[in-house]
Amino acid sequence: MLKTDRAFGLVPRPAGAHAHFLQQWRPVAPPDAVARTAAERRLDMLTKPRGALGRLEPLVARICAIQGTLSPAISQPVAIVFAADHGVADRGVSAYPRAVTAQMVGNFLAGGAAINVLARLHGLDLWIVDAGVDGACASHPRLLDLKLRGGTHDFVGQAAMSVEECHECLARGRRALETAAAPGCNTVILGEMGIGNTAASALLTHAITGEPLAHCVGRGTGLDDAGLARKRSVLEAALARRAPPSDPIQLLAEFGGFEIAMLAGAVLGAAARRMLIMIDGFTVTVAAALAARIDPGVLDYCVFAHCSAEHAHRTLLEHLGAEPLLDVGMRLGEGTGAAMALALVRDSLGLFSDMATFAGAGVSDRDS
Amino acid sequence: MLKTDRAFGLVPRPAGAHAHFLQQWRPVAPPDAVARTAAERRLDMLTKPRGALGRLEPLVARICAIQGTLSPAISQPVAIVFAADHGVADRGVSAYPRAVTAQMVGNFLAGGAAINVLARLHGLDLWIVDAGVDGACASHPRLLDLKLRGGTHDFVGQAAMSVEECHECLARGRRALETAAAPGCNTVILGEMGIGNTAASALLTHAITGEPLAHCVGRGTGLDDAGLARKRSVLEAALARRAPPSDPIQLLAEFGGFEIAMLAGAVLGAAARRMLIMIDGFTVTVAAALAARIDPGVLDYCVFAHCSAEHAHRTLLEHLGAEPLLDVGMRLGEGTGAAMALALVRDSLGLFSDMATFAGAGVSDRDS
Repeated sequence: MLKTDRAFGLVPRPAGAHAHFLQQWRPVAPPDAVARTAAERRLDMLTKPRGALGRLEPLVARICAIQGTLSPAISQPVAIVFAADHGVADRGVSAYPRAVTAQMVGNFLAGGAAINVLARLHGLDLWIVDAGVDGACASHPRLLDLKLRGGTHDFVGQAAMSVEECHECLARGRRALETAAAPGCNTVILGEMGIGNTAASALLTHAITGEPLAHCVGRGTGLDDAGLARKRSVLEAALARRAPPSDPIQLLAEFGGFEIAMLAGAVLGAAARRMLIMIDGFTVTVAAALAARIDPGVLDYCVFAHCSAEHAHRTLLEHLGAEPLLDVGMRLGEGTGAAMALALVRDSLGLFSDMATFAGAGVSDRDS
Repeated sequence: MLKTDRAFGLVPRPAGAHAHFLQQWRPVAPPDAVARTAAERRLDMLTKPRGALGRLEPLVARICAIQGTLSPAISQPVAIVFAADHGVADRGVSAYPRAVTAQMVGNFLAGGAAINVLARLHGLDLWIVDAGVDGACASHPRLLDLKLRGGTHDFVGQAAMSVEECHECLARGRRALETAAAPGCNTVILGEMGIGNTAASALLTHAITGEPLAHCVGRGTGLDDAGLARKRSVLEAALARRAPPSDPIQLLAEFGGFEIAMLAGAVLGAAARRMLIMIDGFTVTVAAALAARIDPGVLDYCVFAHCSAEHAHRTLLEHLGAEPLLDVGMRLGEGTGAAMALALVRDSLGLFSDMATFAGAGVSDRDS
């Protein structure tokens, strides 16, 4: 499902600008290849034509490898939504006003947003992270206040954050994961909320994939043609100020967002814990791609849940060699696509565990 | 989601060869357009960007129209698997021996097949129909014995069944639906099992879509290159015997299968009851397309759940103007793709019913 050549530029360790920071991070260990092979063998024994579950079969085998077992299960899944504001939002790059970020955090805490509904339907423990919302969020037992500031700087004029702030966000993202994930939790759904964040994601996708900027810019929450043109010219101005750094942490600091940096930290932290990581839409995929530039081992733990209507998402998924599970034109964020795709993962694991074998059911296999 | 021009040839009624038969069937009534419009309005009030649920939004609106309500729900869903054998299977058009049809019915009744696992996971009431299995099936409270004969005639040499048998199968398919669906049931998942039935489905797809036969023939449960070539030449021989009739019931009789004809009857019966019909893979889609040639109104009630790896399925879906919910390369049949897709439908209805509105949550809409 994922590129195995890992053609990513590793951040130099321990030398370089991030030496002190990276000393706190261990490389992600690969999943269990023996369990994967055993799972593939069992898949061929089940009462179905070989390969008849399509892409769900390698997915099951990969989850067996991640969990190191032939009894895979989704255990105590947690959903974490990272919310933050963006300085560039003041330039009219979104169809919605910047205040919506804080308002939607209120909606999350009141239980009325899409991800709340899906969390209830799928038994997800939902956490909200204030990663840098402009304004105070109400106190709530499922809200983690990890804010450095109430939004990034406008990256047209200066770096969105300093490299030191980016280090801190990566660390806080991991901390959020460790706080939200109970000891028995083996699966995390990652989502985001941030008015203006598809602008940052477009710039980062341009930098990661090398695709022309114009191909990476989309309508986000629903820009009209004039808004789309404005978003493009704002991002061109940012690139005129500063060409994208090749170093992923410097790139994140330059053009990222606080929620994107914390999501990258959460991906690194979850992979280090050998968790299954359900990646939601465009912005979370950008964070995963940046985490993979820091440590390519994380991709083995990521399931790309759906392909967003934001067309650059498909470009980025192709760059990662990832085939998403769902493709129904969603562009809602919050982790909603990942929450929906988790049902497919659960079904796949259920089939693997509970279907009869040819021998056990007395059904003729093709070779008999 | 579906073509609305209904460019299908209606079976003439009441004149013509099927006059007596068709007197028992009433035309399918259209869904409730008022409920659909009200649902579309409510979708725009929910705390998400407009249209952000992608193709799930028109799906929700359509289900509101089908159920005539703004409180849509999946109630007492039933899954029905129609199983039958095919005379043409003796010509080596499948990777598996013909005996597997009866063996898999045994597996269904013992609870070990994929659809059993998914029925348990999703709370589906699972029924198996012996639509024409070669050999006796064990008695079981969830098995309906509606068999005319133990498999169709080999359609290379003669019609698969008589037109009168086809009429009877359509009626029995509706009877199966009415037996399986409790009074409070508003959703049916349709599946099939029949070694050799992708051969029949390929011929029928050629006849329905006008695509060249070679484009309609696939590997089914996993034919190798030699098997695929054999399957093609067998189907060419059948076409040399008899050009496909344009009348859908005569076409079904000539090249169909007992399970395919009963599935078409179940589609007609479920649409007449205003049920949501979850269409599984290639063969069930063929049955739905034939039902739509008998009464185009059925398509308003059909959700095409997934796109099979059998490539002619995509051709047929495009012919119907249908966009499937899932596309993960499955080719297992039994209703498995439809059972999995039902989770997406439930999620969509849950979001529609339980999300907060912009006004209720105090979130700024784009126009405010």
